[in-house]
Amino acid sequence: MKSPHSLLGIAQLTTPQIEAILKLAKRMDPEHPPQLLRGKRVVLLFYESSTRTRTSFEFAAKDLGATTTLITASASSIEKGESLVDTGCTITSLGADAIVIRHPSSGAPYLLARHVPVPVVNAGDGMHQHPSQALLDALTMLDHKKRLEGLRVVIVGDVYHSRVARSNAELLSRFGANVVFCGPPEFVPQVAATIAPGVVASHDLNAAMQGADVVMSLRVQKERLGGKEHSVEEYIAGYQITPQRMKLAKPDAILMHPGPVIRGMELTSDLVDGAQSCILEQVRNGVKTRMAILATVLGAAH
Amino acid sequence: MKSPHSLLGIAQLTTPQIEAILKLAKRMDPEHPPQLLRGKRVVLLFYESSTRTRTSFEFAAKDLGATTTLITASASSIEKGESLVDTGCTITSLGADAIVIRHPSSGAPYLLARHVPVPVVNAGDGMHQHPSQALLDALTMLDHKKRLEGLRVVIVGDVYHSRVARSNAELLSRFGANVVFCGPPEFVPQVAATIAPGVVASHDLNAAMQGADVVMSLRVQKERLGGKEHSVEEYIAGYQITPQRMKLAKPDAILMHPGPVIRGMELTSDLVDGAQSCILEQVRNGVKTRMAILATVLGAAH
Amino acid sequence: MKSPHSLLGIAQLTTPQIEAILKLAKRMDPEHPPQLLRGKRVVLLFYESSTRTRTSFEFAAKDLGATTTLITASASSIEKGESLVDTGCTITSLGADAIVIRHPSSGAPYLLARHVPVPVVNAGDGMHQHPSQALLDALTMLDHKKRLEGLRVVIVGDVYHSRVARSNAELLSRFGANVVFCGPPEFVPQVAATIAPGVVASHDLNAAMQGADVVMSLRVQKERLGGKEHSVEEYIAGYQITPQRMKLAKPDAILMHPGPVIRGMELTSDLVDGAQSCILEQVRNGVKTRMAILATVLGAAH
Repeated sequence: MKSPHSLLGIAQLTTPQIEAILKLAKRMDPEHPPQLLRGKRVVLLFYESSTRTRTSFEFAAKDLGATTTLITASASSIEKGESLVDTGCTITSLGADAIVIRHPSSGAPYLLARHVPVPVVNAGDGMHQHPSQALLDALTMLDHKKRLEGLRVVIVGDVYHSRVARSNAELLSRFGANVVFCGPPEFVPQVAATIAPGVVASHDLNAAMQGADVVMSLRVQKERLGGKEHSVEEYIAGYQITPQRMKLAKPDAILMHPGPVIRGMELTSDLVDGAQSCILEQVRNGVKTRMAILATVLGAAH
Repeated sequence: MKSPHSLLGIAQLTTPQIEAILKLAKRMDPEHPPQLLRGKRVVLLFYESSTRTRTSFEFAAKDLGATTTLITASASSIEKGESLVDTGCTITSLGADAIVIRHPSSGAPYLLARHVPVPVVNAGDGMHQHPSQALLDALTMLDHKKRLEGLRVVIVGDVYHSRVARSNAELLSRFGANVVFCGPPEFVPQVAATIAPGVVASHDLNAAMQGADVVMSLRVQKERLGGKEHSVEEYIAGYQITPQRMKLAKPDAILMHPGPVIRGMELTSDLVDGAQSCILEQVRNGVKTRMAILATVLGAAH
Repeated sequence: MKSPHSLLGIAQLTTPQIEAILKLAKRMDPEHPPQLLRGKRVVLLFYESSTRTRTSFEFAAKDLGATTTLITASASSIEKGESLVDTGCTITSLGADAIVIRHPSSGAPYLLARHVPVPVVNAGDGMHQHPSQALLDALTMLDHKKRLEGLRVVIVGDVYHSRVARSNAELLSRFGANVVFCGPPEFVPQVAATIAPGVVASHDLNAAMQGADVVMSLRVQKERLGGKEHSVEEYIAGYQITPQRMKLAKPDAILMHPGPVIRGMELTSDLVDGAQSCILEQVRNGVKTRMAILATVLGAAH
């Protein structure tokens, strides 16, 4: 099996490649990390602010022995009009061995990867892909469920704007899970179901929750509710995950959220801290998954 | 003696714990630092900007072999509405072994410490506490004076808004020093004397300086003088530390300031660079003190 | 030969010192960097944003085993009114072994170097000097030409505002190269020719390009064209480097640019990626040159 040179989107990975990354991630021990990337330089090129994803990649790289450098949009040549490709080529010439990029424009990491000789890892591009999130989510599901095949995964919230939803649906569909997107029509248009085979779109949360193995809540930005003439109260009434609604899911269902969570908005505060919540486990798995991703694209996975 | 799990405020430390930190700090050699924190991850969570305190903790952590990551408010999930506790839990799940926090709200580090399983170090919270500063100030005084007991320490300036004044008064009072807060009434209200036993409040600098062993000048922000109808000129006339006024103190009195200094405002420029000034010594002791603090809360002090 | 204590400007270096730095830079291998600076702390004090120079120094320092800390103006005490010298003394007392400074005011690094006991490296000061850029440019020229002596180097663009032009002219003149500044009169006033012996000023690009060994394009900021009543179209018509104009230079002429490049403005996009372009080579040489500079000022060059 050929390792992927870059990690751009779920569609660019073969099924064995996904399995290999998950297997490696599972073995990673952040307390005793193997020094696989000693002497490597990982550049974190963030055109959008981020706490968890940036820090997660930073810890993952440093734990494996790499050095990291953060370049943010506000402090970079971007202001001076340099193109993304030229910035990438400069970073590579400075000595970067890999570039982790977050960008507000869908497709930016793909463009970069075509022009730089080093691996590019997509840490989120616009409304498009967030593959490391989908991989860490799969790792978290597999910590609790025997296999992804046949799982009923309900993804609730602003699916339309969510790169997390898109990457998850593609990965889960690949492994035979049944994905239900659920939210108000402006957040879950019917076309959302065409993302991948086996995905359905629903506007009825109570129906969607029936028999769910995994309930994944997405972030909902209030500005977007406002802009869409849909009030916060209506959203909460129809789509907030509550203890009552969790009872519609299977008794052993797990609750996930990519964070940051707005308690009392997308889900009730007690659920965040409840027994079914895997939210902090997702964060922990994030570091392990990104260790596996960096080791893989840098050819250091064994 | 049980080491403190976190370093929140002076009141939360026992006297032996303070003595142990000072003893360890004195032994620390930044030129040949012991690698006590190898493999540890220290997160610097700064909700307010800071050069010296942030860099001091960063050098202290790195010198002891830890890796550090800086998370600032402007680049973090805070903008997205995540709560402080959730940010803290996320950071812990990412793998932080300790969190150093600066926050504009008094009490924020205490709230955090109650909810995360890792040690929390308060690097300044609102107008409340700045315990590492009080410890490094005590270390500096002990470099010049045999003991804190019986010392006359005059703290001059905007005591009302100063976490440095509060933490220092609590620590010094504990060890039997006599603390005099001095400044105009709006900066030194009578209630300030109730902070700790043996603290007195004065509005007469010349009287306060008589027989002082330590003169500690605080920062005075011009905006606060303006907002209080008290002009800069009046402040300087009444409360600037000058060579003439230093002569009222003991001949071997030392002059301290937490920085950054506005020369010509709180004290004359020649005093900053004069023989009695310990200002840069405070900075040097800051790194040693923070090495001792981090080693202590991370259970690596020996 | 005595190594320079600081690296402030080209004029402060002796010719043997320049030769020694270039020789050391040539030997530096970023893939197998010697651990010359283990245990050293390099502070990057940036009062202006910068991607390539900051990252270049950061990689150089880390590759040699030093730890680095970035202090930027927006997050520093500068806002609080502390003077540059006091900031520098504080940084030194925190334990910095060297300070790399970029500052919008010409002369700031010189002021700093007079007051701190550690080496200061000028990473660009206002419209004045950018010595590490001139050194890496010389290294790049020497990778392609036997010697600097006798080379015809045409520097095109906004010479008036360019610290790159100034440092390059001083260095190249020292080694007997013939420097031609070229641009519209407001960018290349006649007085520019007085910078160093052997420098001439020209407003005729076609004439200037005749027989050039090196064509160095500078950044041109559109705002400055506007402010000078000189339109972008006129600039491009008169001074853009094009394939046709490159044919006026020697067949083996090389094309340089300090970056960031605005394609289609200072030079055509195809030239940036063309066979004569050394732009990314300059970036690569930048890391090597800064490794040599840091090793030299920290007394670790051998």
